Amino acid sequence: MGTRLGELVERFGGQLAGDPEIEVVGIAPLADAQDCHLSFLSNSKLRALAAQSQAAALILSPLDEPTVAATYGGARIITTNPYAYFARVAQYFAALEEVLPSPGIDPSASVANSADIHPRAFIGPHATIEAGAKIGAGARIDAGCFVGRDALIGASTHLFANVTFHARCVIGARGIIHSGAVIGADGFGFAVESGVYIKIPQTGRVVIGDDVEIGANSTIDRGALADTVIEDGVKLDNQIQIGHNCRIGAHTAMAGCVGVAGSATIGKHCTFGGAAMVLGHLEIADNVHISSGSMVSRSVLEPGQYTGFYPLAKNAEWERSAAIVRNLTAMREKIRALEKTIKTLTKDT
Amino acid sequence: MGTRLGELVERFGGQLAGDPEIEVVGIAPLADAQDCHLSFLSNSKLRALAAQSQAAALILSPLDEPTVAATYGGARIITTNPYAYFARVAQYFAALEEVLPSPGIDPSASVANSADIHPRAFIGPHATIEAGAKIGAGARIDAGCFVGRDALIGASTHLFANVTFHARCVIGARGIIHSGAVIGADGFGFAVESGVYIKIPQTGRVVIGDDVEIGANSTIDRGALADTVIEDGVKLDNQIQIGHNCRIGAHTAMAGCVGVAGSATIGKHCTFGGAAMVLGHLEIADNVHISSGSMVSRSVLEPGQYTGFYPLAKNAEWERSAAIVRNLTAMREKIRALEKTIKTLTKDT
Amino acid sequence: MGTRLGELVERFGGQLAGDPEIEVVGIAPLADAQDCHLSFLSNSKLRALAAQSQAAALILSPLDEPTVAATYGGARIITTNPYAYFARVAQYFAALEEVLPSPGIDPSASVANSADIHPRAFIGPHATIEAGAKIGAGARIDAGCFVGRDALIGASTHLFANVTFHARCVIGARGIIHSGAVIGADGFGFAVESGVYIKIPQTGRVVIGDDVEIGANSTIDRGALADTVIEDGVKLDNQIQIGHNCRIGAHTAMAGCVGVAGSATIGKHCTFGGAAMVLGHLEIADNVHISSGSMVSRSVLEPGQYTGFYPLAKNAEWERSAAIVRNLTAMREKIRALEKTIKTLTKDT
Repeated sequence: MGTRLGELVERFGGQLAGDPEIEVVGIAPLADAQDCHLSFLSNSKLRALAAQSQAAALILSPLDEPTVAATYGGARIITTNPYAYFARVAQYFAALEEVLPSPGIDPSASVANSADIHPRAFIGPHATIEAGAKIGAGARIDAGCFVGRDALIGASTHLFANVTFHARCVIGARGIIHSGAVIGADGFGFAVESGVYIKIPQTGRVVIGDDVEIGANSTIDRGALADTVIEDGVKLDNQIQIGHNCRIGAHTAMAGCVGVAGSATIGKHCTFGGAAMVLGHLEIADNVHISSGSMVSRSVLEPGQYTGFYPLAKNAEWERSAAIVRNLTAMREKIRALEKTIKTLTKDT
Repeated sequence: MGTRLGELVERFGGQLAGDPEIEVVGIAPLADAQDCHLSFLSNSKLRALAAQSQAAALILSPLDEPTVAATYGGARIITTNPYAYFARVAQYFAALEEVLPSPGIDPSASVANSADIHPRAFIGPHATIEAGAKIGAGARIDAGCFVGRDALIGASTHLFANVTFHARCVIGARGIIHSGAVIGADGFGFAVESGVYIKIPQTGRVVIGDDVEIGANSTIDRGALADTVIEDGVKLDNQIQIGHNCRIGAHTAMAGCVGVAGSATIGKHCTFGGAAMVLGHLEIADNVHISSGSMVSRSVLEPGQYTGFYPLAKNAEWERSAAIVRNLTAMREKIRALEKTIKTLTKDT
Repeated sequence: MGTRLGELVERFGGQLAGDPEIEVVGIAPLADAQDCHLSFLSNSKLRALAAQSQAAALILSPLDEPTVAATYGGARIITTNPYAYFARVAQYFAALEEVLPSPGIDPSASVANSADIHPRAFIGPHATIEAGAKIGAGARIDAGCFVGRDALIGASTHLFANVTFHARCVIGARGIIHSGAVIGADGFGFAVESGVYIKIPQTGRVVIGDDVEIGANSTIDRGALADTVIEDGVKLDNQIQIGHNCRIGAHTAMAGCVGVAGSATIGKHCTFGGAAMVLGHLEIADNVHISSGSMVSRSVLEPGQYTGFYPLAKNAEWERSAAIVRNLTAMREKIRALEKTIKTLTKDT
């Protein structure tokens, strides 16, 4: 019931060293793999581990092939990016095991007459699809999801259980939105009059491109007048907050708990470590990388890695250093006084 | 199909300079507005942009009126707070376009017999309303919401899809709770015995005043014995966490990802930037403003703006400065040694 | 309708000084308690308050008993851990008032034929239970919850309304999962090829032990290949994010908004203050305590309290100190220059 190595190479490319008739039933890490598994070497430091692997075959790079060929007895699939190859093969095996729901609308779902549900889409139990919403071919709207009026869900996009996707928002093809995410809630916009807040209606949309993944319990607010835009290939982890009118550039990735305040414009191919925060109305260039726990309080126009968090220490040490941080201006004054005194002394001599 | 300027001034006040018969169909920013739009000038620096605006009319302040009157050809509505006026007019136009559900209970909702649903309230698909809950006139409980036993939802309050509002909690009139918010989950309270946690039942409520807005996926915990209180006019953005037994003073606003630990008391008219954190049992006075990303670890009894986050830098620079921060006590010692040596030297001379 | 002190001592232990026939109807803090209440003294500093309490009886420690016996007129239950005793008695009284749903499956729930629902379990309105899922005796799955294919919910575990518990994940007995929590969403795992992310299927599970409590809107991701593991007795507050393949040791507690990146291993009996963050692949030993707002960027192998956040200051003071922090290397250079000059001077003399 396995898949022939020959078939994998036909599907995913790469050069096979070994018998194409060997069958594998799945993929496993070097140390855990059995002789029914394919494994992968994506880090040359693990060559010794590869040599001892029980896997039937390994995915590896041309660089590692000569050494591994000499020490490891199994077949090899040689490819320039073994980790990407592993991802694709893992997707292939996962799809074989996945239990897909049959297309159609669960009888317990509430679907407006004017909603346009593709016959090959799936609408799960207790889902609500409002008037004018359009659900594309192969899309999957799981149990308890809400899709608002005139929203568009692209082909093969998957909303996991209990996602809320508000009116008029749009997501392209092959997207994934994880449970509890809320797309298109009102942005946080108010005018102040005599200390009281007056709500500014949020009438823009959230417009999401193709191949975007949005994590569990993340929130992306709709724009105030214009739209909030998430470009193609963006990957957002869990519990991320994107304020109204932001634009997140294509193929940018953010780890869990990141927050981006309203009207920030973020470039392409950026990465944000967990709990990084971006203030509103800032601009971040392409290829900027923000470390975890760092607060971006000014625009960052030059590519590179940026960091800003207080280093962890034993509590007593932190208390001492934090007390000095609070008084750094005093320390600077002391140094200036010393410099002055010494200037006088050196003049004297 | 537009609205006469004369009618807007009747509704919202202000002084009209121009023809009251001019009709506008909506509101737009200075640069985007067409001759069917009203626009607004809330920042005097944009006077030049106002002069060139295609808008049929502008909302502006008495201060800007003379200059703009001389350069801009359209009508003007003169008012002391143009941004607040804009907000009200925008609400008016948004309400004209809003598709409101008809009052009544969706047949797929689960409503306990003893729940008291006002005939002008709306209960959406798959909503659950438990026994004894009371839903006020004009209130709107959207799809998938849960309203627990004996909870009270005030008149004209709107729970967006998939809100959870637990037993005995209360919200006043004209409130908005966005999708995924959880009101009245248990506070985090335990006794410790031999390293094991014993749960302390959380039997208080969450009591929310009038005109409060709570963002998507925010959480407000019920009190342990007494109540958690959110006063009138408070505005909370998305993904905010309010611990048990907190009190948030009237007209305080918090941006996304703020966290407030249990039993903190926060004054009126405060603001909190995104991801600011407040430790438990602290007191924060009225009119305190906490910057984004700042940790409040002591009570703040004096009004003003407070900040505390590590400044962002290129990663290599941060590594150098963080290494010094870790060793600030050593630096202080060096300065003391220098001061001592110099004292000796100056005595010598 | 109260409970006799004698019965409480029979149930929960402790030594009674006073009349076992006295009845109490509930528990209240020292200052609020009436003569129908039991109260507790868990902090010796409050002895004076205890003396004046109107409570019918007090729970207190042997240490406080002599003083309190002399000043307070009521009965006493003497026990080594009054706070833990209070927690148990409070649970007892809360259970008396709790309105439990009758076991059974709400007619509006969607339950797969092959799901195994214990006859003493409760499945609420609009819940979805997929094929092969198993719900234990006395478990309670409230309105709007989703329990995926082949998931296991242990005996007496309670999922509050709108929890999402994904396929094949497991939770033990007596657990509590609060509303909006998402257990078993995909971990954040991608290979990169030419700047584009390729999803790595997340095929592990989340495996949760007994007596675990998980807060509202918290998220725990399923493992990539192996499982994410939450051991017995762990207590997680609201809005916590646990990445894929983490292990959280038994009886560790985390306050709200904590984030733990993937593959971190955290020991037993640790505590994390609100909004603390842990980077991926780190190891944290048993009995480590991380303060609120602190970023753990290296493994912590020694027990103790650790802290790292920038101290709050008035904004103008923070601006001055932050500017110096940005230039600490310059300050260090100045000190080195001073040291050098002084060395020359002292040699001269």
